Amino acid sequence: MERVDLILTDIKIILTMDENFNEFKDGDIVIKDGKIHDIGTNLRNKYYGKTLVCKDKIALPGLINTHTHGAMTLLRGLGSDNPLNVWLEKYIWPIEGKFVSYDFVKDGIKIAVYEMLRNGITTFVDMYFYENAVADVLNEIGMRGVLSTGILDFPTPGAKNADEGIQKTINFIKEYSSDYVIPAIGPHAPYTCSPETLKKCMDVAEKYGILYHIHLSETENEVKTVKERFGKTPIEHLESIGILNHLVLAAHVVHPTEKEIELLKKRDVKVSHCPESNLKLASGVSPVPEMLKEGIVVSIGTDGTASNDDLDIIGEISTAAKLHKGVKMDPTVLNSKEALVMATRNGAKGINMYDKVGSLEVGKSADITLIDASEPHLNPLYDPYTQIVYSGKGSDVDTVIINGEIKVLNKDVLPISREEVLDIAEFWKNRIENN
Amino acid sequence: MERVDLILTDIKIILTMDENFNEFKDGDIVIKDGKIHDIGTNLRNKYYGKTLVCKDKIALPGLINTHTHGAMTLLRGLGSDNPLNVWLEKYIWPIEGKFVSYDFVKDGIKIAVYEMLRNGITTFVDMYFYENAVADVLNEIGMRGVLSTGILDFPTPGAKNADEGIQKTINFIKEYSSDYVIPAIGPHAPYTCSPETLKKCMDVAEKYGILYHIHLSETENEVKTVKERFGKTPIEHLESIGILNHLVLAAHVVHPTEKEIELLKKRDVKVSHCPESNLKLASGVSPVPEMLKEGIVVSIGTDGTASNDDLDIIGEISTAAKLHKGVKMDPTVLNSKEALVMATRNGAKGINMYDKVGSLEVGKSADITLIDASEPHLNPLYDPYTQIVYSGKGSDVDTVIINGEIKVLNKDVLPISREEVLDIAEFWKNRIENN
Repeated sequence: MERVDLILTDIKIILTMDENFNEFKDGDIVIKDGKIHDIGTNLRNKYYGKTLVCKDKIALPGLINTHTHGAMTLLRGLGSDNPLNVWLEKYIWPIEGKFVSYDFVKDGIKIAVYEMLRNGITTFVDMYFYENAVADVLNEIGMRGVLSTGILDFPTPGAKNADEGIQKTINFIKEYSSDYVIPAIGPHAPYTCSPETLKKCMDVAEKYGILYHIHLSETENEVKTVKERFGKTPIEHLESIGILNHLVLAAHVVHPTEKEIELLKKRDVKVSHCPESNLKLASGVSPVPEMLKEGIVVSIGTDGTASNDDLDIIGEISTAAKLHKGVKMDPTVLNSKEALVMATRNGAKGINMYDKVGSLEVGKSADITLIDASEPHLNPLYDPYTQIVYSGKGSDVDTVIINGEIKVLNKDVLPISREEVLDIAEFWKNRIENN
Repeated sequence: MERVDLILTDIKIILTMDENFNEFKDGDIVIKDGKIHDIGTNLRNKYYGKTLVCKDKIALPGLINTHTHGAMTLLRGLGSDNPLNVWLEKYIWPIEGKFVSYDFVKDGIKIAVYEMLRNGITTFVDMYFYENAVADVLNEIGMRGVLSTGILDFPTPGAKNADEGIQKTINFIKEYSSDYVIPAIGPHAPYTCSPETLKKCMDVAEKYGILYHIHLSETENEVKTVKERFGKTPIEHLESIGILNHLVLAAHVVHPTEKEIELLKKRDVKVSHCPESNLKLASGVSPVPEMLKEGIVVSIGTDGTASNDDLDIIGEISTAAKLHKGVKMDPTVLNSKEALVMATRNGAKGINMYDKVGSLEVGKSADITLIDASEPHLNPLYDPYTQIVYSGKGSDVDTVIINGEIKVLNKDVLPISREEVLDIAEFWKNRIENN
């Protein structure tokens, strides 16, 4: 018998989400040194250590949210249902200009982290300001973030121009990289960053081998603006200045042309699909089935809670799976396995971390999400993929493990208390409403 | 001091959902003889009786699900992602033909009722077979259902033809009508019922003053079939045979023409919008903004769990509010108040019961749903309508009261146990899988 750190045993179904969709019924997962040490059935007689019985649970790889602005939880629901310019100019930008600071981000990200853990998310991609505050929280609680400072050609909270944002990113890489904090660079978008800024950012991405996270082809207005300014559609514009490569994770991609879809595939650009944000902000419906058919790695993101307004990745794949069927008038489009791939395997591939996370395989980090299959709305359980995608909710997540450590147990988030979240929310609500 | 049956006190916000959207902060609701006896603020010194402190709760009228096939929970998730004909012919119909019986429906509806109560639904509109089984369950547990036997021109479980279905409905009206069981007549659709059957059903509806519940203009295929057979689109076809009036609740209405939308308004036909079912079955996107603009009463339905796959009305209005913005490319379409109206006021109007339910007003039945506003994802709470619609989940429902009686408390469903639901689900799964 070998001593290990944690044994998850009697798991009702393990969905490994590996390339072969291997499954184990009544399975076990053995964890040692933060990694999956063994996985299969009848492993209990080979190992001893702390044991968690998971009789009614479905095990999945930890879910991955590939696009959000975490700290915007503090602005959740403000100015909803308004035209985009009113929402931004009357609500979001004035408040951000006045309030966003290290403290704002540190508090806002705590609500986001609470909510993401509760919903089974173990890794997320963030773009906002004061990412050092996000890093401090993640290192403290032990959750993974791919963190990028939003870089724009005008003043932002924390940086007076793009060069300062880039320098902040370089400093951040040197200071904060850890198992939990994976630095990325975040040029905001082709209409807010000049070609020079976009190129400088790519230089940094290539030098340090980090993710290049950018909003791309999100709205018709963006397409129009970029066309007017550069004579090209946004993705072709990036191609023309040599920006498209395997380091790029493009958020949204709602309005690509056929030719642009081919370009994304050719250059191995990854896409983060944010269906609920695209609907709520009336950006449109991304041609995800076409991109998947082309072989592009499409993962899934919640976007920030000012535009969605929750951080529930299961809800997001459920929306995606239904939306594209309805819009394409074809019920076979984006089936439940493909939808769940977006939140796991493709999430990991989208951030170039599939060697470490995104499937349950020996040697990978022990990032595991366990769903409570005894929730009545998940029964009868004929097909676990279908049930999770079409009937599941984030609130069905029972247990979350990151790097072998338990972060959520029996639906309780362990590193942050509900009381702290509510106190933070109340504090900032009062400040913002009374300004 | 007057003695009453139940006092809900210190309610964080009461959203009455009446015509003026009256709200009360730190409000009280006083219940006597199953009805709302008083509502407002500072009422505690006027009444005494059993008291429930609701400090962190938002009170809403009990939610209304205006279209489902409840007992189909037993088929939840079977054959998802298949073309419609494969789904029906290979999965749903053979199993229904073999298994649907009084016992099947009684068991299936228990899962549905558990789930609907858990999600804050107090009244639902059902169309299936063996509705006497549904009635028996509802009378036992005290939940409201508007119940119709599906009537078709060919044999169904429990009836060899339409006439037998109609006779069953008449018997059902006489035998089962109660505070909880509201009989309706359920001609299935214009392509499965002859004009004679449709007319016979309307005779019964008018004679007894009951709801006429029908699937209408759900798919392009239906429109094509009806056109071929009768030379008219489905809604015009019904108009031509004198079927459209205020008793009609039409489910789906995905493909109406402009002229048909005018007809629905002119005849005071109510619509049950089922956005998630329409997406998942690839029926399309209903022109809800156009129908609301015309002044049609549009409520919301989950449809059956074989085609959705859950019974979460909050999820459904959230999808609706986002979907129509995205499809119309206009973020002001179907705002959060309008979305919540669909699940409350318009639900009650859709079943011609707005004198009794659908808003929190003195004299109406005490059907109340309390949301747990201390769920972190609902905070900060700037706007309760927005937060419920865009961040809320059925699982945020904390307490449900029907006719003044508590059915859900602290998120526990009282009339049916989770264990019973799971036993039922397991029993039928084994029978169906081994057939």
